[in-house]
Amino acid sequence: MLTKSENRSFGGVQGVYTHRSESCACDMTFGLYLPPQAQTGKVPLLWYLSGLTCTHDNAMTKAGAQAWAAAAGVAVVFPDTSPRGPGVADDEAYDLGQGAGFYVNATQDPWAPHFRMWDYIATDLPALLAAEFPLDMDRQSITGHSMGGHGALTLALTLPDRFRSVSAFAPIANPTQSDWGRKQLGAYLGEDSAAWEAHDSTLLMTERGFAGPLLVDQGAQDQFLDLLKPEALAHAIAARRQPATFRMQAGYDHSYFFVASFMRDHIDFHAEALRA
Amino acid sequence: MLTKSENRSFGGVQGVYTHRSESCACDMTFGLYLPPQAQTGKVPLLWYLSGLTCTHDNAMTKAGAQAWAAAAGVAVVFPDTSPRGPGVADDEAYDLGQGAGFYVNATQDPWAPHFRMWDYIATDLPALLAAEFPLDMDRQSITGHSMGGHGALTLALTLPDRFRSVSAFAPIANPTQSDWGRKQLGAYLGEDSAAWEAHDSTLLMTERGFAGPLLVDQGAQDQFLDLLKPEALAHAIAARRQPATFRMQAGYDHSYFFVASFMRDHIDFHAEALRA
Repeated sequence: MLTKSENRSFGGVQGVYTHRSESCACDMTFGLYLPPQAQTGKVPLLWYLSGLTCTHDNAMTKAGAQAWAAAAGVAVVFPDTSPRGPGVADDEAYDLGQGAGFYVNATQDPWAPHFRMWDYIATDLPALLAAEFPLDMDRQSITGHSMGGHGALTLALTLPDRFRSVSAFAPIANPTQSDWGRKQLGAYLGEDSAAWEAHDSTLLMTERGFAGPLLVDQGAQDQFLDLLKPEALAHAIAARRQPATFRMQAGYDHSYFFVASFMRDHIDFHAEALRA
Repeated sequence: MLTKSENRSFGGVQGVYTHRSESCACDMTFGLYLPPQAQTGKVPLLWYLSGLTCTHDNAMTKAGAQAWAAAAGVAVVFPDTSPRGPGVADDEAYDLGQGAGFYVNATQDPWAPHFRMWDYIATDLPALLAAEFPLDMDRQSITGHSMGGHGALTLALTLPDRFRSVSAFAPIANPTQSDWGRKQLGAYLGEDSAAWEAHDSTLLMTERGFAGPLLVDQGAQDQFLDLLKPEALAHAIAARRQPATFRMQAGYDHSYFFVASFMRDHIDFHAEALRA
């Protein structure tokens, strides 16, 4: 693992690190915020998965998470959204290929050799974090924005023992029924849509639910509401009687200004679950 | 004035606007955060002046100001750091020309036709803000980072009736004695260093002081300490018996992670002065 930068932030350290990922078969970069409490012991870990076009950097610099993570004593990891590099397949569209991994293990060419973001988040990166940093890996929670909200929900619903709580900002909630989903799941997993269903949080909610607390925030003025389909997830939550808070926030759009406005609520929500 | 974007943020609105500046003889872009309280009446205004290479955008997206401005009921304006555009002079160096206006009125070619950032901040932009937004222009304060800290201090010290309080993050504190200053003041104002003295906050502090409260934060691990010269300003403050708080913050560098870590303190500091 290589340290690219470390900056003091709210009494803790905002670091950026690069490491070799076995799953993605390339070097990967991530941000990790360690709160001041990590100087004297292990701290719980919140995953923040980012959306289309983002790298590890966007939320790390624009979401204002460090203020609240420091107050709560929670570490926050900001992974990249796809494999990258000259040997890695890509597409000219902003919503396919590099920057658009969709948190799945691709089975189709040209994506299969590197696009294994599910395994990267579920296996590779946690092993590295546990080995290198003062993190209590028995206390993990997960959140994300847009494509990253999709990733957070699908990972939490599929790995029920891994995360104590899950939340999402404007998640791609029903990708099997959206142009943000059908295109990418088709490209990465093939045209048989049966393989897509394991990556649709509305379907997973209907089938499985989640044992811990769940929080979703969605801007009512989000310019991508037709692609996100929050109504499908809200329906599935209510139909299952899943304990959850689903908030439609008047006036907010899809930007980081929306994410930052509710970051404190999400970190406090997870911190409570992680303290228990 | 043209609205480029408006995003809901912490219950208020983060806007970006473009207007024709008479002082700079070109179009200028600025960010303005209006807190929720501006929906029902006029609110006080805090100026945030940015540093070298920045536009209106950097602090607006990375400094986390909106959270605290909303809580305090204070608007924050984020001006650009220089005139810009194809007809505007520039230099290949990052620290001269576009992105490096140094908050002075240039008298030398090729800078004189557009580089009038002092008048832009002191006259042009306040007139526009007063006309277009629900701001109480009798209640203004000012802060800034690096070159913007220099601008905030020199403006506040020179226009004593304009700002109720002044603060700075890692300001260029003694530019007449620094390579961040001598180069730019020479280029913009000419080689006679007598003209530079009006733009050195250490000299202004020695001569004039400031009637209101003053707060300066400086990272002890700042990579530019030799250029910033905080010791000169600290000496001048103490020698004058100027009421002030000057904090050397252990472990912090020059980045926005430093700025964000202490933004709450600065906004709360100004909010108290603006309430009085």
